Amino acid sequence: MNTITSTKNPLIQTAKGLQSKAARDASGLFLCEGEHMVSEALRAAPQSVAALFVDDTKAERFAPLLLQAPASAAVYAVPPHVLAALSQVKTPQGVAAMVQTPPMAALAALGPRVVLLEAVQDPGNVGTILRTADAAGFTGCILTDGCADPLNPKALRANMGSVFRVPLHWAADAPAAARALAAQGYAVVASALNGDDFYARPPLPPKVCLLVGNEGAGLSDAAKAAATHMYRLPMRGGAESLNAAVAAAVFMYEIVNRG
Amino acid sequence: MNTITSTKNPLIQTAKGLQSKAARDASGLFLCEGEHMVSEALRAAPQSVAALFVDDTKAERFAPLLLQAPASAAVYAVPPHVLAALSQVKTPQGVAAMVQTPPMAALAALGPRVVLLEAVQDPGNVGTILRTADAAGFTGCILTDGCADPLNPKALRANMGSVFRVPLHWAADAPAAARALAAQGYAVVASALNGDDFYARPPLPPKVCLLVGNEGAGLSDAAKAAATHMYRLPMRGGAESLNAAVAAAVFMYEIVNRG
Repeated sequence: MNTITSTKNPLIQTAKGLQSKAARDASGLFLCEGEHMVSEALRAAPQSVAALFVDDTKAERFAPLLLQAPASAAVYAVPPHVLAALSQVKTPQGVAAMVQTPPMAALAALGPRVVLLEAVQDPGNVGTILRTADAAGFTGCILTDGCADPLNPKALRANMGSVFRVPLHWAADAPAAARALAAQGYAVVASALNGDDFYARPPLPPKVCLLVGNEGAGLSDAAKAAATHMYRLPMRGGAESLNAAVAAAVFMYEIVNRG
Repeated sequence: MNTITSTKNPLIQTAKGLQSKAARDASGLFLCEGEHMVSEALRAAPQSVAALFVDDTKAERFAPLLLQAPASAAVYAVPPHVLAALSQVKTPQGVAAMVQTPPMAALAALGPRVVLLEAVQDPGNVGTILRTADAAGFTGCILTDGCADPLNPKALRANMGSVFRVPLHWAADAPAAARALAAQGYAVVASALNGDDFYARPPLPPKVCLLVGNEGAGLSDAAKAAATHMYRLPMRGGAESLNAAVAAAVFMYEIVNRG
């Protein structure tokens, strides 16, 4: 195991810089923090782990994790203050990894159940939707202009490793991506206050793309125009709307389990 | 309209102090921030609005809101720096209200569909669950020891006014409250990894209490023992769990709309 003792070390500076999206995009790397995320990275994409940083006062605790690291990953023991310099959280768990950005999937590789995010700007919502898509059995996710970066630290904390498991596709234009899927036989489902009752729907076809809109503005008119099905979730009480990640979850679980 | 120009004014100091739970409990007051929350308070419980604070540079914009205020509410024009002193957000919208804490409901007044939160500690989750319960058509919520305060500013931002609409009951002990509802004929539904498939369940009775556990530890053994039904949501991908508010939403929408 190598050691790094200074926060001025160039590798530490690089890792710290990955808090910014520009640096992530330029380097093709992002930072995973904490035992759970690092473990998920080592399990799902071991060859993509470029470097591991371990608190040198907790090396014993993380020994089992380090044994999972591929030979290609550089492992560094660092004092707590160096790990704290990398970290976005108040009390770092003692382990972090510099990981290669997951490759983007082709549209055709997203599988039969796709969630398409249009300008979902809260990183916690993007992370939670990825986690729910993974759990529910959605097979791909499309991110578009204006979406929070799924590799943003807050999005990573919310997705619990699902960023390594759900194929991600990048498309600049949400309506164009929705139209492309519709042309391939997907039902493109939009949530709309004036849509049909979702619970009274006829069965959906096997290929479904769920559109999720911006937290404040909802879906754009162009995205709604690209939808083949417009549904509303019943609002029985006085609430006017649902949180974006909550609405997406109700739609996804219902689509997978009720057709 | 009265005016207050100093952050040292005793009423401003009281309002600012309501950021702490101890002060909310002692005074029976809490602070609503922003146009949406203040408007919800004035709509749902006008007589509970004790005081309104309006940015004196934006008085015209908020005039329609002020017209809804009951005669019993004291209205104060304040300069932006005084409103900023009250506020928990970086860019205050220009209006805030000091509101009486909603009265707690009796157990018998919670109606047929109750969500019971056991040590749900994230204020955002408590707020989101209240908002979803309201939307889905749940008729009451039980909060227990270890739950985040639903009047915490972060919980209020997430609940979008549902705190005024969903009857809330306070119980120290979650398992005891669950047993009390079971004795009254409620199906007490717990989420458990080894439970039955939720989507293959026989119809539930008309009275249902959904148990929601702590974000990290899940439900206590005692709460599970009080359940009459144990169900699991299918996890088809690699995710091991769902966010607490997401799981609660899937359960609530399914219970209301599929029985």
